[in-house]
Amino acid sequence: MHATPGAQALAKEPTRVKVLHFNGETILRLSAQIEVSYEVVHPVRAIFDPNEHALAKMVGGRPILLAIDTKVFALYGDQIRLYARKHLHSVGEVLIEATEQAKAWNSVERVLGAAFQQSLPRNGVIAAVGGGVTLDIAGTAASLYRRGVGCVRIPTTLIGQVDAGVGIKQGVNFAGKKNGLGTFYPPVGTINDPRFLQTLPQNSLACGMAEMIKIALVGDAHLFESIEEFCRELILSRFQSPPDVARDVLLQSEYLMMDELQPNLYEHEMCRLVDLGHTFSPVMETLSDYNLPHGEAVASDMLLSTALANLRGYCDEGLLYRLLRIYSEAGLRAPLWPAWQLVEGLRQARLHRGGQLNLVVPVRPGKAIFLQDIDLPDLEEALKLLHRLRPEVAR
Amino acid sequence: MHATPGAQALAKEPTRVKVLHFNGETILRLSAQIEVSYEVVHPVRAIFDPNEHALAKMVGGRPILLAIDTKVFALYGDQIRLYARKHLHSVGEVLIEATEQAKAWNSVERVLGAAFQQSLPRNGVIAAVGGGVTLDIAGTAASLYRRGVGCVRIPTTLIGQVDAGVGIKQGVNFAGKKNGLGTFYPPVGTINDPRFLQTLPQNSLACGMAEMIKIALVGDAHLFESIEEFCRELILSRFQSPPDVARDVLLQSEYLMMDELQPNLYEHEMCRLVDLGHTFSPVMETLSDYNLPHGEAVASDMLLSTALANLRGYCDEGLLYRLLRIYSEAGLRAPLWPAWQLVEGLRQARLHRGGQLNLVVPVRPGKAIFLQDIDLPDLEEALKLLHRLRPEVAR
Repeated sequence: MHATPGAQALAKEPTRVKVLHFNGETILRLSAQIEVSYEVVHPVRAIFDPNEHALAKMVGGRPILLAIDTKVFALYGDQIRLYARKHLHSVGEVLIEATEQAKAWNSVERVLGAAFQQSLPRNGVIAAVGGGVTLDIAGTAASLYRRGVGCVRIPTTLIGQVDAGVGIKQGVNFAGKKNGLGTFYPPVGTINDPRFLQTLPQNSLACGMAEMIKIALVGDAHLFESIEEFCRELILSRFQSPPDVARDVLLQSEYLMMDELQPNLYEHEMCRLVDLGHTFSPVMETLSDYNLPHGEAVASDMLLSTALANLRGYCDEGLLYRLLRIYSEAGLRAPLWPAWQLVEGLRQARLHRGGQLNLVVPVRPGKAIFLQDIDLPDLEEALKLLHRLRPEVAR
Repeated sequence: MHATPGAQALAKEPTRVKVLHFNGETILRLSAQIEVSYEVVHPVRAIFDPNEHALAKMVGGRPILLAIDTKVFALYGDQIRLYARKHLHSVGEVLIEATEQAKAWNSVERVLGAAFQQSLPRNGVIAAVGGGVTLDIAGTAASLYRRGVGCVRIPTTLIGQVDAGVGIKQGVNFAGKKNGLGTFYPPVGTINDPRFLQTLPQNSLACGMAEMIKIALVGDAHLFESIEEFCRELILSRFQSPPDVARDVLLQSEYLMMDELQPNLYEHEMCRLVDLGHTFSPVMETLSDYNLPHGEAVASDMLLSTALANLRGYCDEGLLYRLLRIYSEAGLRAPLWPAWQLVEGLRQARLHRGGQLNLVVPVRPGKAIFLQDIDLPDLEEALKLLHRLRPEVAR
């Protein structure tokens, strides 16, 4: 009689793999609990100040490849190199042309190529220094290089700090589809240095403000009111004044975003409040050939979604006025597109959300709901409403 | 006085994001527990038998794109299509040329392109039908398409069933590096149908046997003895005889592999027993321009590792004889390469294992240890030993 190792070892305890039998079928079932954890750190000094240790602490001596936006490198390149020489075990740097058009696979491949050329080991780190596009490209590369190395994010734009930098996802455009391919991949952490905001054009700050308005609309009336009261001053001062408000609204936006993401990090649940402003906006960006900034598309989408909510009686017209006034104060453009083009957004959203539309619309600041039964005639009516309101506000 | 939303919402309980202050630095820390779970199912009938429900049950009515090895399609295409028509919501199929040379990014791109063309939604599934290479290509695509859709694996080779199909990783070759890019991504599940083994060339079965020997050497003396006793009959009968041994050794190999992987699914721990046979083999495969089958490279690596263990006094020469005899019975080739070429494997392994070599060597069947201080002279001596032993066994 031969040995039957199966029965013997299968009985061993404690079992990490269950063996089940159903009608002759055999099933081996593996289950595991994985701990995901990452930090968003606000350093005391400017991040590349020779006496600031936040980045060195986060990297912890591991070999690091720096992936840096070309524009950021022009401004901060010398400082970054000095810092790297003093505090990091840098294997090299790779520059990223961070336009939405360049957010494609060949840019990811360039970062991967640099990592291989510099023999970045598997316990190494790829650090992204730049805006949302840089975080997307370098983050995708970090999640794929040798099946994943550490990813550290140093967002230099407002949208990067309050939105792209606080979650775990990244992607690049593929086959005409925005973020068509990408990954969910937790970073080691993110370092948000508000000093970068000082050198940003106001238009870029306004775009970041759109994502702050989004999270305030779905999550916190107080944040919405702070933005309403101070957005002009915040943008004109590039988030330096009033200093305590600037600090509070940044931290609160990040906190609310992370708090919304935490129970649903991998988006297995496709009903997500943070999708406000992200149903029609991908189509607008694609239609514009990625010339429309993401924040403006989001602003425009939020306007449309609020108008739809108003027409269905879920929110009053006052909220539309408040939104339009914030946009005007912040210098945030929100161009509108014809309904027959935006209707594609409904189809794409259903494809992306498991067959359901899950359109997020605000009820009042801090409270939003989901709509399912929106179609072309609704969009036409909502656009009519917005075209009627807009001249009054522009006045 | 303006509102301070920060303090207010930050106090809300239960907290999912911690806010910490250190010397003026502010840290937002997100932590989450993620549950990972998947199954390896052995169906009652042939998987594409019109009365078999294992696949339909696993997919659960979701839209599915079938990525099928061209050779498998030639043999089973009609059956697969009939099954898909009867039991699946198929959006289409894409054929994969499954050679190690074709295991590159452009093959992944082809699968992604097909998924976009067929508008596979985000709650859809990509199913891989083929050997390890097909699982790698289609699995990488599934992990990236819209940042990840369901992945179902139907391995049609022995190596696919006992090795590539039971874990959570996939990858493709990049920049001259085997599996240079890829992901850890849990599948929905894997269905192992032993009937596929009936149409495999014996050489392919021998290659799968190499991975079974690996897991037996590090994990289970009984399995090793069963393989030793029956490998000739198993391979000649294409795993149909003796039927209970065939069933037991397959299940036991899969079980042991999953049990080893479970506590370390994402390989944060780089000391891994299942790396036996996987230190020098990637270099051999690269040197052969991917003409050397993976199983033969693993077999060769295990021989070398065992010789190194013997020279250090960790195992007796008997184990080398037993290994050589199994290879000979199974018709498993294990070509040797000069030491000066294999030394690159040490460098690559250190890069890949966080600076440590972690060379797995067997002590006796079911027991292995890690060596750190191996270098060129050791390889030269081990090869000398193997060249001395080989003629005796070949006799």
